[in-house]
Amino acid sequence: MGSLDSNPASFDAFAAEADGFQPLNAEDVRSYLHKSVDFIYDYYKSVESLPVLPDVEPGYLSRLLQSAPPSAAAPFDIAMKEVREAVVPGMTHWASPNFFAFFPATNSAAAIAGELIASAMNTVGFTWQANPAATEMEVLALDWLAQLLRLPESFMMNRTSAGRGTGGGVILGTTSEAMLVTLVAARDAALRRMGSNGVAGIARLTVYAADQTHSTFFKACRLAGFDPANIRSMPTGPDTDYGLDPSKLLEVMQADVDAGLVPTYICATVGTTSSNAVDPVGAVADVAARFNAWVHVDAAYAGSACICPEFRHHLDGVERVDSISMSPHKWLMTCLDCTCLWVRDAHRLTDSLETNPEYLKNDASDSGTVTDLKDMQVGVGRRFRGLKLWMVMRTYGSTRLQEHIRSDVAMAKLFEEWVRADDRFEVVVPRNFALVCFRVKPHAGMTEEETEAANRELMERLNRTGKAYLAHTVIGGKFVLRFAVGSSLQEERHVRSAWELIRKKTTEIMSGEMSV
Amino acid sequence: MGSLDSNPASFDAFAAEADGFQPLNAEDVRSYLHKSVDFIYDYYKSVESLPVLPDVEPGYLSRLLQSAPPSAAAPFDIAMKEVREAVVPGMTHWASPNFFAFFPATNSAAAIAGELIASAMNTVGFTWQANPAATEMEVLALDWLAQLLRLPESFMMNRTSAGRGTGGGVILGTTSEAMLVTLVAARDAALRRMGSNGVAGIARLTVYAADQTHSTFFKACRLAGFDPANIRSMPTGPDTDYGLDPSKLLEVMQADVDAGLVPTYICATVGTTSSNAVDPVGAVADVAARFNAWVHVDAAYAGSACICPEFRHHLDGVERVDSISMSPHKWLMTCLDCTCLWVRDAHRLTDSLETNPEYLKNDASDSGTVTDLKDMQVGVGRRFRGLKLWMVMRTYGSTRLQEHIRSDVAMAKLFEEWVRADDRFEVVVPRNFALVCFRVKPHAGMTEEETEAANRELMERLNRTGKAYLAHTVIGGKFVLRFAVGSSLQEERHVRSAWELIRKKTTEIMSGEMSV
Repeated sequence: MGSLDSNPASFDAFAAEADGFQPLNAEDVRSYLHKSVDFIYDYYKSVESLPVLPDVEPGYLSRLLQSAPPSAAAPFDIAMKEVREAVVPGMTHWASPNFFAFFPATNSAAAIAGELIASAMNTVGFTWQANPAATEMEVLALDWLAQLLRLPESFMMNRTSAGRGTGGGVILGTTSEAMLVTLVAARDAALRRMGSNGVAGIARLTVYAADQTHSTFFKACRLAGFDPANIRSMPTGPDTDYGLDPSKLLEVMQADVDAGLVPTYICATVGTTSSNAVDPVGAVADVAARFNAWVHVDAAYAGSACICPEFRHHLDGVERVDSISMSPHKWLMTCLDCTCLWVRDAHRLTDSLETNPEYLKNDASDSGTVTDLKDMQVGVGRRFRGLKLWMVMRTYGSTRLQEHIRSDVAMAKLFEEWVRADDRFEVVVPRNFALVCFRVKPHAGMTEEETEAANRELMERLNRTGKAYLAHTVIGGKFVLRFAVGSSLQEERHVRSAWELIRKKTTEIMSGEMSV
Repeated sequence: MGSLDSNPASFDAFAAEADGFQPLNAEDVRSYLHKSVDFIYDYYKSVESLPVLPDVEPGYLSRLLQSAPPSAAAPFDIAMKEVREAVVPGMTHWASPNFFAFFPATNSAAAIAGELIASAMNTVGFTWQANPAATEMEVLALDWLAQLLRLPESFMMNRTSAGRGTGGGVILGTTSEAMLVTLVAARDAALRRMGSNGVAGIARLTVYAADQTHSTFFKACRLAGFDPANIRSMPTGPDTDYGLDPSKLLEVMQADVDAGLVPTYICATVGTTSSNAVDPVGAVADVAARFNAWVHVDAAYAGSACICPEFRHHLDGVERVDSISMSPHKWLMTCLDCTCLWVRDAHRLTDSLETNPEYLKNDASDSGTVTDLKDMQVGVGRRFRGLKLWMVMRTYGSTRLQEHIRSDVAMAKLFEEWVRADDRFEVVVPRNFALVCFRVKPHAGMTEEETEAANRELMERLNRTGKAYLAHTVIGGKFVLRFAVGSSLQEERHVRSAWELIRKKTTEIMSGEMSV
């Protein structure tokens, strides 16, 4: 039994009153949602003052809430009270303007509204027929975003558009899923080319990515059954700013071919999680072409920046890759989850992913004139995610979306300048987007271990204040602080406050003051 | 250019006014959400009168909306106008009380509110530290639901609860993902037991399921790299009401072992999509135990019914399986997406799915006292899905949830009685839950083909009316109509109207009237 768990006696009347339970009664829906909107309004107004990282111990929630499900109904206000009193105090507030960790999960009024409407309509658009509007809105939103990114036309034509290209797109939940489905398509195509009997040849297939690639890529390879020994994590270094070196890639792939292996897939990242490194997309595609290997571009975070002409060059060569994914839930103000995947030849995906059970058969699918998006993802069920993405573009237009990206980058640049102007610090790798990787630099004969300890101490002291939250990484053996600008409520004053706090805590540490 | 695409001239002023774009401005959020709530209220009030299945052609939406993304911002009302005028007319209305297709996507005021709040907070709880409240709420919601289902304790103890068991749960997006992650865990465990060098032994692993199992299972097996030749779809028939026959399973598994293959995984379904057949969980587990194979129970739809004591026997034997999944987004009034997976030994999952990149390392994870839920799923990012599921149980209590299940089953039973009382029809398989599989039966020397044609004609005529939508399946070679009761706004009068419509259209067809 937790401490917030008892229903006041007045509930008995409430619980007894029910006469035919109507879970979607329109009056209740409106009432519950109005209360939720009030909560959200208050939350956004106050989140700045809440500790970004909560001071709770594992198991804290089960000590506050009841451990067994109630049998009686309770007014919605009770759930809201428990959210306020038990959930909020244990939250890491990604919406806080003082959040600088990981990558921001940017969001917007239009996106939340789109998600709300989709939740209420609650359709399951696995086939076109199961919700034509959802499929077509998803295709339209992907085509709009592809235009903003200036992706080649070949990626853009789903079968429901005029023109009937071979390309196609789909909205998935995570980049990991985008990697997995393209890995499986590439795997199956390679096995077919080898004339493999079933999966017998799978142990000969090889995949490649820079060592800076997100760990989820290496996990997706294992999920798809690639041999752990054949998953090549290519070393990178400061000479390429931690981007993949195409000449080394060529060497390794050729050596694999010489050893009787079959290069199958390369993942190139535009904007790595660790440091925002950029693999050279065009050069990677050129190497891959020699071996008929699939190239996927993971632009989860930095893809959003490529809607600005000044960042678009990071995608140069994309017309020669097989697939690209990016996540508007990271930096395009679209609440979770929304990862966009485009492929040049949708049939290569559907060849591996199509199912056709009797209970989903229908004339539209049989006609071949529509895309059933279930055949481009892991599962069957799917939410109406296209709505929120379309609403973001429809409401803000490309001008404001670009303005938003540029404003974040300008704030990061300012922070970078402050770091450079204080000789206790160093910027460890060049800043490409809105992430600054920096650290307290070794001084007065400090060893690398002592430098790491000082930076760890700085991070921990900062995060304990509740006034800023940032995370770390390790680049080239160095322990580095990641300062990611862009939380949607963030303004320059928050970046400035965080910087002042960093300076203050650094001074404390250097003068040997104890942590408070 | 579509027909709804021009911005009135008055927008220019609006677009020019922007001074520092604030995508999460609390006033805007409140305003957009209030408009969305008004829309939802109107939608629920009117959805009954809308055609359930829309009369639109592929590509209809791109003819109504602009084909290129706007550069200028537009008032939110414009997006809402286009939703009303272009999206709604192309929707298949799963929320309609006249929807009887597939399985209903049930929903509730509490769930939508929970999803809305989660969307606004927009946290990414990949690790415990990244949002302690989200991880702990998910664990608590899963423990509550496990109690309602009377799952064995061994499934229930995530590491953040007191007690520290080996079991654990996670909320995923789809049943397919639950199957995939358990398949991968079982695959890797089998390879380790075989002493396989990497994945070399994968072509010897075999998996099993009844031929009535959802097609997504067979797809998940291919995603995980199992050899298509080793994926056994076991024939079923009317003698077992289309459930898996454990004695046949034993035979096939033994034959595989005799042939040098390695039985690895069995999927047992409680409530198949096609006809709600139930595989005998306990007997399947007993067979599996002889071969050390993983048993997964897919109770996506019917699992919800098992919160009622009178249906719980369908899970008998679950204490001997390795994992079970069910989807509250199907029948427990929780909007998409919400699939709950429990495993008896969480380490078997995390052994295959754990990642540990530097930028996610933190003291809580290092301490081993918390569960990082990213290690039980395909991706890294994850929404705060536990909130809506908890809110449903907190607000309605088990009593109303059971009442809701029983009410749906009672309506299905009524429908079944009406079908049985009309000698033009037959119920094709026994009704287990709230799905009735029926057809116009052959009469006056009709062949099976003619019977199928009559039933197809009936389905198409019904669906064209817009007053009811139902889907079909094929069971034992027979074309069968599926009447799935339970859409959240459904009342007995809707079931009655649909039945009257079915009778009327059948009379028309039998009297040779042309389709109108």
